[in-house]
Amino acid sequence: MSGRGASVGSRRVRVELGDRSYPIEIGWQNLEGVGDAIKRHTGASQAAVLTVPPVARRHAVRVVRSIRDAGLRAKRFEVPDGERSKSLAQAGKLYDALLEAGAARDTVVVAVGGGVIGDLSGYVAATLLRGLPFVQVPTSLLAMVDSSVGGKTGVNVRQGKNLVGAFHQPRLVWIDAHTLTTLPPRQRSAGMAEVIKHAAIWDARLFARLESEIERVMALEPEVLLPVLERNCQIKAEVVSRDEREAGLRRLLNFGHTLGHAAEALKRYRGLLHGEAVAMGMVYAARRCEAMELCPKGTSDRLSALIERAGLPLELPAFPRKAYLTAVRADKKREDARIHFVALRKIGRAETVPLLPEEIVPAGARIGSGAKRGSGGSG
Amino acid sequence: MSGRGASVGSRRVRVELGDRSYPIEIGWQNLEGVGDAIKRHTGASQAAVLTVPPVARRHAVRVVRSIRDAGLRAKRFEVPDGERSKSLAQAGKLYDALLEAGAARDTVVVAVGGGVIGDLSGYVAATLLRGLPFVQVPTSLLAMVDSSVGGKTGVNVRQGKNLVGAFHQPRLVWIDAHTLTTLPPRQRSAGMAEVIKHAAIWDARLFARLESEIERVMALEPEVLLPVLERNCQIKAEVVSRDEREAGLRRLLNFGHTLGHAAEALKRYRGLLHGEAVAMGMVYAARRCEAMELCPKGTSDRLSALIERAGLPLELPAFPRKAYLTAVRADKKREDARIHFVALRKIGRAETVPLLPEEIVPAGARIGSGAKRGSGGSG
Repeated sequence: MSGRGASVGSRRVRVELGDRSYPIEIGWQNLEGVGDAIKRHTGASQAAVLTVPPVARRHAVRVVRSIRDAGLRAKRFEVPDGERSKSLAQAGKLYDALLEAGAARDTVVVAVGGGVIGDLSGYVAATLLRGLPFVQVPTSLLAMVDSSVGGKTGVNVRQGKNLVGAFHQPRLVWIDAHTLTTLPPRQRSAGMAEVIKHAAIWDARLFARLESEIERVMALEPEVLLPVLERNCQIKAEVVSRDEREAGLRRLLNFGHTLGHAAEALKRYRGLLHGEAVAMGMVYAARRCEAMELCPKGTSDRLSALIERAGLPLELPAFPRKAYLTAVRADKKREDARIHFVALRKIGRAETVPLLPEEIVPAGARIGSGAKRGSGGSG
Repeated sequence: MSGRGASVGSRRVRVELGDRSYPIEIGWQNLEGVGDAIKRHTGASQAAVLTVPPVARRHAVRVVRSIRDAGLRAKRFEVPDGERSKSLAQAGKLYDALLEAGAARDTVVVAVGGGVIGDLSGYVAATLLRGLPFVQVPTSLLAMVDSSVGGKTGVNVRQGKNLVGAFHQPRLVWIDAHTLTTLPPRQRSAGMAEVIKHAAIWDARLFARLESEIERVMALEPEVLLPVLERNCQIKAEVVSRDEREAGLRRLLNFGHTLGHAAEALKRYRGLLHGEAVAMGMVYAARRCEAMELCPKGTSDRLSALIERAGLPLELPAFPRKAYLTAVRADKKREDARIHFVALRKIGRAETVPLLPEEIVPAGARIGSGAKRGSGGSG
C-alpha cells in the first residue's frame, strides 16, 4: 500500500480566519516534513510534543526527530490514553511538566494522536502562559476529519464532556494518512461516523461517493482515501471559517450529537467511542426527522445503510426514555428550555430546529438496541 | 464626601479592540446602574456574580440587586480572599458550582472585588463552556487602574504567578470609585503604585499632577480622584489597544515587575501586596537605570519621593543577591537568556531593553531593606 501511496500527491486545505488562518496539509508518509512546517508556521525555537502510548508514540518519535532535524529543541510528553485523560488534573500535570522542562513563549505545543490528545493538548496550549502556538498532527481518522480542525479544545468535568475549554486555533494541521494503517479497525469505523456526518449535512455528492466506495476508503487505499480526507477538511474548514464560535452554522456539525452525548453520559463514557455514539445519534435523529416529516421517507434508511457498512452500531444503548430525557436536558447547548436540534432535511442538507427535549425524545419513543433493526448495539 | 461626589459627572473610556471593544464606565456611587449596562453589553439572561468576603460582598450584594432589577437572574458565589484563591483548584470548584447552578451560554460572569477575584473570575469565564461573556466591577484601586482592563486573566501554579491563563477581554468594566472608601489604606497605597507606574512610563503631566496633589487622590476627593482614574484607564486602554497580546508595547506595563515578581516569589507571596512589590521593583529599576546611565540623575529620587508619599515601601525585602538572580531567571518573560527589562528613560517615558539577569542584578548589587534610604520595608 505504501508503495502505491508514495506517488499520491499531497493536498492542502486552508482554514480562513483572518490573521488566524492556517493550512491543513494532507499527505501519505509525509511525517518527515512536519518539522520544517512547524518552524515555518510558528517561529518557535522549541517544541513540546504531547502524545499517548502505545501506537501514537511511534509516530510522535518521528515527529520529534523531524522537529530536531529542523533545528528546534523538542521533548516528548506522554499521557495515558483514553477519555479520562481529558481532565483538569491531567492538564495540571502537563502545566507542571512543561514548565519544569523550560516551556516559555517560544514553545510550540504539538499534539500527536487522536481526539483526546488533541483536545487536551490544545487546552494546555490555550492556557499555558496565556496561550502558546499549537500544531495538530492527528493520527486517528476522527481527529483528521473533525477534531483537529476548528480550534475547539477542552477537558471534561463531572457535569459533562468539554464543559471547560477554549477556542484556540492551531497554526498548522499536518495529516499523514499513512498513520491510519496502525489504527485499530474499531477506531477507524468511529472516524467514519464523522465522515458520513459531513456528507449527510453538507455534501450529497460526497455521500454518493461514499455509497459507491466506502469499503475502499475503509481499506485505506490512498487514491480514494486522500480525496475523501481533503473534502472532509474542506467542509469542516468552510463551516468553521463562516462561524468560528458556533453562533449558528457550526452547530450543524453537532448532527447526531444530542442523543450521542446523552448516550455517552448514560454509559459514563465507558464502552462507547465518540464516533459510535454520534453514529447512533445520527440514526436516531434521522428517524425522528422522518417521523416529524422534516425529511423525505427513506432518508434514515439510506443513512443507516452507510453507517452499517462502516461497521458502526445503529441502535442507542438501552436506557429508559426518562434517562435520555434527563441527559438531553443537561446538555450544554441548552438555552432556556429549547435545544438547537440538528435536523436532517435531506441527504446533504441540515438545519437547526429549536425543539423541546420532549419533542426530541417524545413519549413512547423507542430507544435502545433491539427497538428496531437490531443490528448495531454498543458493544 | 458622597454628597460632594454625587455631583461629579461619570466618565467613559473606550478600549478599542475591533469587534471586542468595550467601555470602561467611571462614576461615583453609580453601582445601581450596572445591571442595565450588563444587560445592554452582554445580552445575557443570567449572571454569576463572583466575589470575596468580607468587604467586596457588600458591593456584590448591590450588584446582584441591580442585575435582578434589570430583569436577569443573578446568583452570588464567594471564594476566600487572598492570592491563594488564584489556583486551578479554586477554578475547578467554581466550574462545579456554576454548572450546578445552571450556568449556560446565556450566562455572564461578573467579578466584584480586587485583582484576585478579577483574574480568577476572568479565567473561569474564559474557560467555562469555551468562553462566557465577562464583566469587571473592580472595587480596589489596583483593579480599577490596572488589572480589570486589558483581558489578562489567570491563576498561579507552583512554578509562579499567572503562568496559566488566557486573554479574555471583558464586555464592560464598571467602576464605582466610591467603593474605594471601604478599601483598607494599605490596599489603597498598593493601588497607587500602579497609578504612579502609568505616570512614570507614559505621562509626565500625570506624574506632575500626582506630585502636586497625590494626598488629595489618596483622600479620595472625587473631583481629583475621578480624572486620575480616567487618565489611568486611558493609558491602560491605549497600550492594550495597540498591543493586546503583549508582543511589544504592552511590556512597558511590566515596569518594576522583574524585581517585584522576584520579591513576591522569594516571599512566597506572603506579607507583600502586589502593588508594594511593584513599588519596590520600580525604585530598584530606576536606580539601576541611573547607574547604567539610561536615565538622568535624579530620576529615581523623584520617583522614590512620590512612592513614599503614597505610603509605599521603597526597599526590596532582604534576600541574598543570588536568590534574586535565580528568581529573575525563573520569570516567565524569559526568552533565551535575555529578559525584556523595562527601563525608565526619563519621567514619562520607558522602553524595553534586553538584558541578562546578571546585568539586572549585577555583582555587588545592594538589595534589601536598609541597603540605602532605609525607609520603606516590606512590613
